[in-house]
Amino acid sequence: MVFESKGSLTLVDRPEPVPGFKEVLIETAAVGICGTDTHVLDGEFEGTIFPLVPGHEATGTVVALGDGVSDGVNSLAVGDHVAINPSTVCGECEFCLNGKQNLCRFWNGLGVVASDGASQQRFTAPVANVYKLKPETDVYLAALIEPLACAIRGWDILPRRIGDHVLVYGSGTMGLLMAQLATRAGAASVTIVDLNQERLRTAAEVGVQHRFTSADQSERSNWDVVIDCTGNVRAIEDGLPRVKAGGTFQHFGVAPTEAKANYSPFRVYRDEISIVGTMAVLNSFGRAVEMFEAGAINAEAMVSHSFTLDDYVQALDMFRAGSGRKLQIRPNDTESRVFRS
Amino acid sequence: MVFESKGSLTLVDRPEPVPGFKEVLIETAAVGICGTDTHVLDGEFEGTIFPLVPGHEATGTVVALGDGVSDGVNSLAVGDHVAINPSTVCGECEFCLNGKQNLCRFWNGLGVVASDGASQQRFTAPVANVYKLKPETDVYLAALIEPLACAIRGWDILPRRIGDHVLVYGSGTMGLLMAQLATRAGAASVTIVDLNQERLRTAAEVGVQHRFTSADQSERSNWDVVIDCTGNVRAIEDGLPRVKAGGTFQHFGVAPTEAKANYSPFRVYRDEISIVGTMAVLNSFGRAVEMFEAGAINAEAMVSHSFTLDDYVQALDMFRAGSGRKLQIRPNDTESRVFRS
Amino acid sequence: MVFESKGSLTLVDRPEPVPGFKEVLIETAAVGICGTDTHVLDGEFEGTIFPLVPGHEATGTVVALGDGVSDGVNSLAVGDHVAINPSTVCGECEFCLNGKQNLCRFWNGLGVVASDGASQQRFTAPVANVYKLKPETDVYLAALIEPLACAIRGWDILPRRIGDHVLVYGSGTMGLLMAQLATRAGAASVTIVDLNQERLRTAAEVGVQHRFTSADQSERSNWDVVIDCTGNVRAIEDGLPRVKAGGTFQHFGVAPTEAKANYSPFRVYRDEISIVGTMAVLNSFGRAVEMFEAGAINAEAMVSHSFTLDDYVQALDMFRAGSGRKLQIRPNDTESRVFRS
Amino acid sequence: MVFESKGSLTLVDRPEPVPGFKEVLIETAAVGICGTDTHVLDGEFEGTIFPLVPGHEATGTVVALGDGVSDGVNSLAVGDHVAINPSTVCGECEFCLNGKQNLCRFWNGLGVVASDGASQQRFTAPVANVYKLKPETDVYLAALIEPLACAIRGWDILPRRIGDHVLVYGSGTMGLLMAQLATRAGAASVTIVDLNQERLRTAAEVGVQHRFTSADQSERSNWDVVIDCTGNVRAIEDGLPRVKAGGTFQHFGVAPTEAKANYSPFRVYRDEISIVGTMAVLNSFGRAVEMFEAGAINAEAMVSHSFTLDDYVQALDMFRAGSGRKLQIRPNDTESRVFRS
Ligand SMILES: NC(=O)c1ccc[n+]([C@@H]2O[C@H](COP(=O)([O-])OP(=O)(O)OC[C@H]3O[C@@H](n4cnc5c(N)ncnc54)[C@H](OP(=O)(O)O)[C@@H]3O)[C@@H](O)[C@H]2O)c1
Ligand SMILES: NC(=O)c1ccc[n+]([C@@H]2O[C@H](COP(=O)([O-])OP(=O)(O)OC[C@H]3O[C@@H](n4cnc5c(N)ncnc54)[C@H](OP(=O)(O)O)[C@@H]3O)[C@@H](O)[C@H]2O)c1
Ligand SMILES: NC(=O)c1ccc[n+]([C@@H]2O[C@H](COP(=O)([O-])OP(=O)(O)OC[C@H]3O[C@@H](n4cnc5c(N)ncnc54)[C@H](OP(=O)(O)O)[C@@H]3O)[C@@H](O)[C@H]2O)c1
Ligand SMILES: NC(=O)c1ccc[n+]([C@@H]2O[C@H](COP(=O)([O-])OP(=O)(O)OC[C@H]3O[C@@H](n4cnc5c(N)ncnc54)[C@H](OP(=O)(O)O)[C@@H]3O)[C@@H](O)[C@H]2O)c1
Ligand SMILES: [Zn+2]
Ligand SMILES: [Zn+2]
Ligand SMILES: [Zn+2]
Ligand SMILES: [Zn+2]
Repeated sequence: MVFESKGSLTLVDRPEPVPGFKEVLIETAAVGICGTDTHVLDGEFEGTIFPLVPGHEATGTVVALGDGVSDGVNSLAVGDHVAINPSTVCGECEFCLNGKQNLCRFWNGLGVVASDGASQQRFTAPVANVYKLKPETDVYLAALIEPLACAIRGWDILPRRIGDHVLVYGSGTMGLLMAQLATRAGAASVTIVDLNQERLRTAAEVGVQHRFTSADQSERSNWDVVIDCTGNVRAIEDGLPRVKAGGTFQHFGVAPTEAKANYSPFRVYRDEISIVGTMAVLNSFGRAVEMFEAGAINAEAMVSHSFTLDDYVQALDMFRAGSGRKLQIRPNDTESRVFRS
Repeated sequence: MVFESKGSLTLVDRPEPVPGFKEVLIETAAVGICGTDTHVLDGEFEGTIFPLVPGHEATGTVVALGDGVSDGVNSLAVGDHVAINPSTVCGECEFCLNGKQNLCRFWNGLGVVASDGASQQRFTAPVANVYKLKPETDVYLAALIEPLACAIRGWDILPRRIGDHVLVYGSGTMGLLMAQLATRAGAASVTIVDLNQERLRTAAEVGVQHRFTSADQSERSNWDVVIDCTGNVRAIEDGLPRVKAGGTFQHFGVAPTEAKANYSPFRVYRDEISIVGTMAVLNSFGRAVEMFEAGAINAEAMVSHSFTLDDYVQALDMFRAGSGRKLQIRPNDTESRVFRS
Repeated sequence: MVFESKGSLTLVDRPEPVPGFKEVLIETAAVGICGTDTHVLDGEFEGTIFPLVPGHEATGTVVALGDGVSDGVNSLAVGDHVAINPSTVCGECEFCLNGKQNLCRFWNGLGVVASDGASQQRFTAPVANVYKLKPETDVYLAALIEPLACAIRGWDILPRRIGDHVLVYGSGTMGLLMAQLATRAGAASVTIVDLNQERLRTAAEVGVQHRFTSADQSERSNWDVVIDCTGNVRAIEDGLPRVKAGGTFQHFGVAPTEAKANYSPFRVYRDEISIVGTMAVLNSFGRAVEMFEAGAINAEAMVSHSFTLDDYVQALDMFRAGSGRKLQIRPNDTESRVFRS
Repeated sequence: MVFESKGSLTLVDRPEPVPGFKEVLIETAAVGICGTDTHVLDGEFEGTIFPLVPGHEATGTVVALGDGVSDGVNSLAVGDHVAINPSTVCGECEFCLNGKQNLCRFWNGLGVVASDGASQQRFTAPVANVYKLKPETDVYLAALIEPLACAIRGWDILPRRIGDHVLVYGSGTMGLLMAQLATRAGAASVTIVDLNQERLRTAAEVGVQHRFTSADQSERSNWDVVIDCTGNVRAIEDGLPRVKAGGTFQHFGVAPTEAKANYSPFRVYRDEISIVGTMAVLNSFGRAVEMFEAGAINAEAMVSHSFTLDDYVQALDMFRAGSGRKLQIRPNDTESRVFRS
């Protein structure tokens, strides 16, 4: 699959990529679709260079190792199942040199900016981005590891105080991951809000206790931690006043670039509220592998459909329609599949 | 029950205590026995003033409210089930004025220092120390809330990083609480070590995955967080070298006052190890109530026997013999009971 | 001085207060005037109960000790110079029991809510609120310790990362304290902005390097830490976009209760910005005494005028006119004085 | 200068190094000598591969830029004065992928492990390790930036609480840097202890207020933060009991690999003491440049002698004798110099 230019995509036959120095050739198992893919295709993602093979939430099997991979640091071998961290950074800018590589001003992402992603049968990735999975781990569901790594970063910058009450807006992939991790981050209770009743069904399946279409329906009137996983200004402005004194509001969702939200500076002062943001993955990919393999999330309940490369357009349409749960591309599968309806 | 002096205890009839200003009169439900009780009786606890009614891990039912209790701050009512924080502090020393009340140089504990504890049919406590339970909460098992509040303090000063691997020494009450909370504090895995195979049975029941009589039996050779819940120098020196680079060792257990342990300063430097201590309860009692009521620990598996006041000596004997799990005094119960053998 | 009711104040003769249990009688040296005093008089401060003697930034000399003061915890003696923390809290609410006493829902402040303050010749305070000064410390200038304790709380919840660049809006008492502490909190550089050129003169005197009437005049375009010490929405909205990626904006200033500010949720996410609030004093009064005595601030440059009780109205007028620097009441002084013009 | 093998060094003529891809060729200004150099020469540094040009605390002038340097990330130009971070890491190991690059298991240091250092007239370094200095900065004294970056890392993992009292053992280069930064890290007071009276003279010059040959001479009996900058077990065991309840002991000094120190586990528990380590540089080199240029340390008082390459052996002898302050090699200087005696 190639995004040729803004808004245009085609399926083309291409020679198999060759792994360069310190690179690994991987046969794709599954690639999750997320809003970033549509942003990239729509030319709304800052920095994308077309043509580009999309796909950044990927897993697969190691097919070949480039030079320099077997230098003693890692123990990757042909046949290993792996999850791939799509981010690469410049390593030279002020942010890279200060331990904030996710804020790198020259950030590159496989399938997002300038390097081809995983929506093809085989793709290459730098060895430092390739994480080994246990043989018994479901290599298809494991494509949730990439979003899980974002969710762990989200929790890294929250207090993770044992006994906190947590409210999450948005019961999509990210909201569900943040809500499931909440319990692992010390929450005494977790509440999720989504306008869409259908989405709350998945929340119930993954074990989120309190589920509402509006936070007003809850007995509780404020929460220690409120997390926006919608990017929607209405959700944000609904959530801000529900933060308890001493508590934290997190922007996990990506609001439109030009959108503005209103808040009360007096309340931030008087009640010592914190408003924080979290962006992508920082030092959290390896831990996402571990938490996934430790069963911290109910992955089965989260993936509803898989598509072959031939059905890529159909997958995007379904994604844009907001139906289904997490949708995946499985480039080497023989047919598209439905797991949950 | 009264500890008359070092080593001597008797059961006496005493007039019912009267709640003073801002005090609450409570009918005792259950009082856990812990090592502190034997230390107090043996005259080894710094500051104890005899005679003293022991008992600091208590729950009960509100019988009467002293003056000033119903002033609008709280909503305590006669008949409420409650858990009691035994600690009171001076409020004037440098530590109290710096938010470290657990380090107060004039610390007092009900049943431990100068104020009578809960091993009697009714006792009084300052209203600020009385926490309301939900009616549906098991008021007897809830006597585990006090040690749980210590465990939450323990986790408060650990990193609580999602994805850490945790090793706990000691599968007694405290080790089991720390291990159960580990999962709620982000742990990807939890390992517990106890010399006593019998104790590991309880660990299995409460869901601790990896259990050994020696850490050498584990496949893992180092852990991000190692917690001593034995107070035993051999356990400590066994555990220190097992902390992973960048990791933390916590002294939760209380070692003998004069004991010394050996460590490698080079390793602390080279691998940026942290060694930290945790002492009693700080800002964690209310959260212990919430986590207990949220079902964060398996309390049923942890309490093995209850005793009437008449059988107090028998309870102490059993405790000193190290048999059973958590033992409780239930001063208003009609007979002693066995829940787990 | 008594605030009789909203907007009305009179000077009355009253019997000398008598120190109660655990209270101290203090002869007032100096009392700073700040915006809170005018808010209180104007009936805009939540909770004030008239009539009330104002004055919460106070120092003085111990005249008598109430019962229970000499109980071994402290070493206060008649004749000692002292600074007084005006805040008292309920000790029973959820916030008090969680180590966030500054967020206490039943907060009381000497001279602010229900207890008389220091704008009288002698006043009483609970011993836990009385901090001893060194004999060599200037007991009049030391009335800056109370606002300094707020400033230390402000820095307590900022990262205090060595090497940060700091921008402060507002060169009033609080902005000057935050700016002076910036260097002690690791700042590589400090910039201050005030619309009022006159205020920047004091900033120069206390050693703030970069001073502008608009942040646009600076060579630097963003800062790791931006602190609002104006409470003005225009300043806030000017400052928010100047926070560097990964940086923090702090609301130190008190905006009008109903005011709203606009921010970009996208930017908070994309650049992992934090917005935090700080409210009054928490565990910082003792440290303010120490930092004041360590010479961390240039107190002489900050106090411009003192007034006798007879000139109280004149002091308020000057304060409302925004002229002078810190103004003080010195109830036992024989005449009003000018230190800086 | 080449360390040929363990214990053997010679001065040889070598062709000028050529900067590779993303490398910079630098004409050396100054190279500080520290204990690491003697460890390397004595074959005691883990991993050194001989022959090796020593020198890791370096500054210089850019002479040529390799390919890929001028790619838009940085603005390095021929003629720029620069300071060089000697550390390079694998970028692939668990520690590198978790933001703890200083704990990288495949750590390499210019002049320390496998890459030639700066004790030669010209040397190369990866562009990500080269930091631009302001033209007005003294390029020779700036060789203190590398140890300053270690000191900032040291403070990064201390609480940096405003108002703390700090005690430093060792008035060598590192102790002096930690002590000078203490004030910038919030300390209310700083005390330094060194057995060697002569060393305390430098401490006085750089402005450390309290200086003793034994901590017993101080009026203060405990400190919030105690930092060992000696690596000596006697200093460590002297310092540990002087940590105040709630305080922190830091291992900055490098103790012998096999040395053991004794501590009281009871005290760590009872007083919630923390013992922490700090190792080299992490995310702190750029900030060291900024703090150096902000004048945070008195560099003039710290450098006593410079040596030409011809006098390298003499410099090492003087260093081993423990005389002088910081000694430097200035490979392009025409003669050895004495700045302080
Ligand atoms: N911080 C990071 O590192 C990071 C990483 C990945 C993704 N993200 C962002 O996280 C957000 C969520 O991603 P996702 O994949 O979970 O998206 P998603 O599947 O579209 O889920 C968002 C959910 O929020 C619901 N929603 C929209 N407006 C709402 C409102 N006002 N109140 C309550 N619910 C509302 C949506 O309901 P409908 O179905 O009715 O619209 C939808 O179910 C996106 O903005 C994404 O860009 C951030
Ligand atoms: N920090 C705090 O706030 C706090 C609060 C409460 C309690 N504590 C302390 O925490 C510790 C544990 O309390 P607890 O009530 O859980 O005590 P406990 O029931 O006696 O449990 C301790 C367990 O550790 C085991 N053990 C002893 N030495 C060992 C070794 N070398 N290796 C492995 N296991 C070993 C014991 O086995 P055996 O049965 O064979 O002896 C026992 O099962 C005590 O020191 C207590 O004083 C601290
Ligand atoms: N967080 C806390 O614990 C705490 C404690 C004490 C005080 N406060 C608050 O902190 C704030 C400052 O107190 P203060 O005593 O320093 O007050 P202040 O003396 O009135 O100082 C405020 C300064 O800000 C300037 N200013 C106003 N609008 C500005 C703008 N748009 N841009 C730049 N400068 C502007 C004012 O200039 P003009 O003179 O021209 O108006 C004045 O010089 C107040 O809001 C106060 O309520 C907070
Ligand atoms: N953590 C890191 O990243 C890092 C980085 C660089 C260096 N280091 C380590 O930091 C330590 C200090 O380095 P440096 O360059 O400053 O070394 P230095 O110049 O040798 O200074 C050490 C000082 O400590 C004094 N001293 C020795 N034993 C003492 C004792 N028992 N009590 C008081 N003072 C004592 C020494 O006095 P005499 O002169 O009488 O011996 C000397 O003045 C070394 O161990 C070094 O390896 C660590
Ligand atoms: Zn970068
Ligand atoms: Zn106290
Ligand atoms: Zn309160
Ligand atoms: Zn590495």
